[in-house]
Amino acid sequence: MTSVPTTADVTMEQANRVLTASVRKATELGLLMNVAVVDVGGNLKAFARMDGAWLGSIDIAIRKARTSRLFDMPSGDLGPLAQPGQPLYHIEFSNGGLITFPGGVPIKDGSGLVVGAVGASGSTPANDHEVAQAGVAAFAS
Amino acid sequence: MTSVPTTADVTMEQANRVLTASVRKATELGLLMNVAVVDVGGNLKAFARMDGAWLGSIDIAIRKARTSRLFDMPSGDLGPLAQPGQPLYHIEFSNGGLITFPGGVPIKDGSGLVVGAVGASGSTPANDHEVAQAGVAAFAS
Amino acid sequence: MTSVPTTADVTMEQANRVLTASVRKATELGLLMNVAVVDVGGNLKAFARMDGAWLGSIDIAIRKARTSRLFDMPSGDLGPLAQPGQPLYHIEFSNGGLITFPGGVPIKDGSGLVVGAVGASGSTPANDHEVAQAGVAAFAS
Amino acid sequence: MTSVPTTADVTMEQANRVLTASVRKATELGLLMNVAVVDVGGNLKAFARMDGAWLGSIDIAIRKARTSRLFDMPSGDLGPLAQPGQPLYHIEFSNGGLITFPGGVPIKDGSGLVVGAVGASGSTPANDHEVAQAGVAAFAS
Repeated sequence: MTSVPTTADVTMEQANRVLTASVRKATELGLLMNVAVVDVGGNLKAFARMDGAWLGSIDIAIRKARTSRLFDMPSGDLGPLAQPGQPLYHIEFSNGGLITFPGGVPIKDGSGLVVGAVGASGSTPANDHEVAQAGVAAFAS
Repeated sequence: MTSVPTTADVTMEQANRVLTASVRKATELGLLMNVAVVDVGGNLKAFARMDGAWLGSIDIAIRKARTSRLFDMPSGDLGPLAQPGQPLYHIEFSNGGLITFPGGVPIKDGSGLVVGAVGASGSTPANDHEVAQAGVAAFAS
Repeated sequence: MTSVPTTADVTMEQANRVLTASVRKATELGLLMNVAVVDVGGNLKAFARMDGAWLGSIDIAIRKARTSRLFDMPSGDLGPLAQPGQPLYHIEFSNGGLITFPGGVPIKDGSGLVVGAVGASGSTPANDHEVAQAGVAAFAS
Repeated sequence: MTSVPTTADVTMEQANRVLTASVRKATELGLLMNVAVVDVGGNLKAFARMDGAWLGSIDIAIRKARTSRLFDMPSGDLGPLAQPGQPLYHIEFSNGGLITFPGGVPIKDGSGLVVGAVGASGSTPANDHEVAQAGVAAFAS
């Protein structure tokens, strides 16, 4: 029998903890957010939309989380590289549509392995990133 | 000034209560489910995937909820009408793809107005419907 | 630090072994096949098209493998359930397009956990299934 | 009987040789890559993803190879022409989505005729191009 290397994945309980922490941070900041968590395969694991949050941010939150897992980095790290004249110009055309501004952050296990990602959307990219980061911090705590 | 009729919507707190009740019912039945809640506009409001639930049921749970709100009826009510030779044959081609087997159930307020829907996927359509129904019951309670 | 449950995934070396075994089986049977392997997340891991194999089978082989992983069963097991009047009629409309006839088979590790899937396309569904099965057998050996 | 001009195509054996050489080059450089080979018709012929390579690079590797064959030039040659104000601005919108940064390289036969292309993705565009080029060199050798 072939041995298969193990990897890790985020659980539903962990994903819900991430959502709760992100929503709490958004509430503290007076923001209305959509927050999505994807698993190690980039598939949707959990999602919550605060009452009154932008409808257009549902899709963006999910795409930010997915973009972040697909490249194992904050979604906003891709933005400068995707500008006109830069090395990854128009990378957003791949993978059915990426979002390359901030708000997506990878979730890592204790060994630094990416096991999923969180995406937040509903305000400025900086605020979105802060809300996503609060979710990631709750995962690690 | 035109007066605009008020409408009702499902809140995040209510959506989370629906998810919790559906997941509890699935656990009681020994099933692994994906559960989605859409709002009065048919847009994703909340989502949870139990650990080990089928990856293919993410999309189906969301489509069942959406189908149910789009036509204000259980998704399975459309199935018989969508068969070959029946009045709504191939309605699944509309709206970016519908799911017309059971597992999607409308959420109604006290006056019977549809304010959203829940969709469950992960087992037989009958089990999926039961899990979705448990979520709806929690909303009304 | 949160502990994360481990899961498993198919390696490139294993995926290539699966492809080689499927192509060998197709050659024995005098068939021309497209063969795809997806990983635990349903993402493409390896692919090969034999010279002269149907171009239309590229997409079908990949969708069969993906369908098989999305529902952790042979793709053909969904077929009878997806017929008119049956419980999962038109499930193919979900997940961006499924294939529900034979030719996709899950890859399981020693404990029975699904860690990926193989899809073959290029002949009859029965032949496709046999070629995919040969790949799975090589994984387990 | 109309005579039809013969064309050349990359074989499965050649495509596998290209993949092996690209993966070897990536390993030498300490990189994790997705590598795709398309045939003379721009259709997927062979694909391999190294363990741990970015999931988002599956699609990009395939699109780079396809872009390269569609225009019979390295994918990166299109980049400067696709910038704002330049002659091919937004060409990425065509053909279901192109990638115009480096990492796709045409495969030519002995007479200089393009018979396919290789695409690599997983690092910087310069590294991706080097890995793709190593695959092309193995074809010609």
